Amino acid sequence: MNGSSMIDSQVSSSIESSGRSPMDALISVTSADMEAVNTLILSKAKSHVEMVPAIARHLIDAGGKRLRPMLTLAAAQLVGATSGHQISYAAALEFMHNATLLHDDVVDESEMRRGKPAARKIWGNQASVLVGDFLLGQAFMMMVDAGSLPALKVLSSAAATIAEGEVLQLSVATNLDTSEEEYFEVIGAKTAALFEAATEVGAMAGEPVEAERAALALYGRELGVAFQLVDDVLDYGGAGGVLGKNTGDDLREGKMTLPIIVALKSATGDERALIAEALGDDTVDAHRFGIILDIVKRHGGLNYTLEHAHKHAQAARTALDSLPASELRDILANMGDYCVGRAY
Amino acid sequence: MNGSSMIDSQVSSSIESSGRSPMDALISVTSADMEAVNTLILSKAKSHVEMVPAIARHLIDAGGKRLRPMLTLAAAQLVGATSGHQISYAAALEFMHNATLLHDDVVDESEMRRGKPAARKIWGNQASVLVGDFLLGQAFMMMVDAGSLPALKVLSSAAATIAEGEVLQLSVATNLDTSEEEYFEVIGAKTAALFEAATEVGAMAGEPVEAERAALALYGRELGVAFQLVDDVLDYGGAGGVLGKNTGDDLREGKMTLPIIVALKSATGDERALIAEALGDDTVDAHRFGIILDIVKRHGGLNYTLEHAHKHAQAARTALDSLPASELRDILANMGDYCVGRAY
Repeated sequence: MNGSSMIDSQVSSSIESSGRSPMDALISVTSADMEAVNTLILSKAKSHVEMVPAIARHLIDAGGKRLRPMLTLAAAQLVGATSGHQISYAAALEFMHNATLLHDDVVDESEMRRGKPAARKIWGNQASVLVGDFLLGQAFMMMVDAGSLPALKVLSSAAATIAEGEVLQLSVATNLDTSEEEYFEVIGAKTAALFEAATEVGAMAGEPVEAERAALALYGRELGVAFQLVDDVLDYGGAGGVLGKNTGDDLREGKMTLPIIVALKSATGDERALIAEALGDDTVDAHRFGIILDIVKRHGGLNYTLEHAHKHAQAARTALDSLPASELRDILANMGDYCVGRAY
Repeated sequence: MNGSSMIDSQVSSSIESSGRSPMDALISVTSADMEAVNTLILSKAKSHVEMVPAIARHLIDAGGKRLRPMLTLAAAQLVGATSGHQISYAAALEFMHNATLLHDDVVDESEMRRGKPAARKIWGNQASVLVGDFLLGQAFMMMVDAGSLPALKVLSSAAATIAEGEVLQLSVATNLDTSEEEYFEVIGAKTAALFEAATEVGAMAGEPVEAERAALALYGRELGVAFQLVDDVLDYGGAGGVLGKNTGDDLREGKMTLPIIVALKSATGDERALIAEALGDDTVDAHRFGIILDIVKRHGGLNYTLEHAHKHAQAARTALDSLPASELRDILANMGDYCVGRAY
């Protein structure tokens, strides 16, 4: 899976036995600002060329919980931003994210996205590529309108980094020798860079001291890494490794995620051969995937990946230590553990 | 064909019986600056992710004569720009252009580009989409580094407009009822918007008075329209309508260009049926294309399109009237006629 899908769609349930989850709390504290963001998103997705708003709205209306723009808004609140620019930044973030989803679905030949047929299945790959480009252009226009060159630098750098990470992911696809280091480079670029940009530009909507900005950027980065690690575990059925309708896509797409990289390290020759055969084979059914899943579990691929997720969630928490204590800071600090909790 | 291919590859020959062509003159007056642009382009196409520079260089080295960045540099010279920003702007323009070419080739399922196999034929559609995204991100970073928000606004607006135009083109593909108005909207967006941005940001590298900036923007726009009209005539064999190895792609891709729109206006029922059958059919061979070409010629599709090209070339010339006379102004003024001359 790629970054968004599973976690976004499951945010409404709480990991806590009582009280609201950090995600619910985040939704609540950003809800007023998010209304403005949603209004802006809808106005900027307009075009008299019918396919443009049709595709944009198909994707945008399908939801996801808009974690990235919420992070931008929360970071802005945390530094007491009064510029109002966080609204544009948050909308731009969401446009960039949706542009990458449109392009990812073409690249991954995905059938579904956020529980609906992927845009490319309805309007074709061609329109998906072009509307992604449109959203990217609109994202930059919103940033320009907000008028901050430093924030534009963060966003444009993230755009290039994300694409670079996706190319790296593509170039190591089905490569059994992919290293853990390469994996972390891929997810750092394709996922964490946008989380980092989200919290960093959120901070930049205020007038943060450099340390605050750096702390929030690091927080976003670590949270993004934890988020992707969990996503990659969920694609192998979560901590328990349970087969489900959302499992096995990464394997079928040949994606070298950490669970499979770890398994390959100590796999027997026979196991290795089975994995090699299944990677990138989109005909792998539940039975064959179950066999690979057993291999991954046997070699500790899921536990190892989750340990790393815990570590990065902890690093995200720690990154906020230097900021003044507040309820909002606590909500953000708990987001990492909440994300990791989704795997259990 | 899309904007660049034919004309770019034929610039070295002169349309004048003696002396150098406006294109050769433009190459000559911008050559010193272009060296700096080329150096910047190569440095910004770097990445340790091997496929990124491989694809970028495949496209960039194949050439084309870099008309858009040359226009940026010439516009900057014309207003006496001393900021040096035109170098970044020109490189950013070329990156944007190459990003759209990569995506266009995926959308059009092209086999060739600039006389070489299209990147997507070597590295696949997936990598072409992603490296296009990377180039777009890098283009914006270069613009940010140059530090002008107004210039960034021009470029990001062009990026969104180009994508919108491509979506419109896609949505009217093979639609026999496509109007002339829709056609001009498509080429105004997909081609002329980037020409306009090229000359406008070139002017903005200086400190032009508003009238100069507007004049150069209009010049770029009109030149771009003329350029695309000629390209669309060349795809039907130029003014003479002569079958060649570079003819018929637009028909096979179902593109509703002006020659075919005009032909459809007065075509008989039988002719209309033949056109309908051929549009979007990639198996159309030389014989079948020859039949369509005869229909297009019979109904004046090529002449009509060229008349419009002449008109826009003239409008490009006139746009420069308000600028002080100079050799460079004359070179630019002649560019439109030069472009149109390619069709003969």
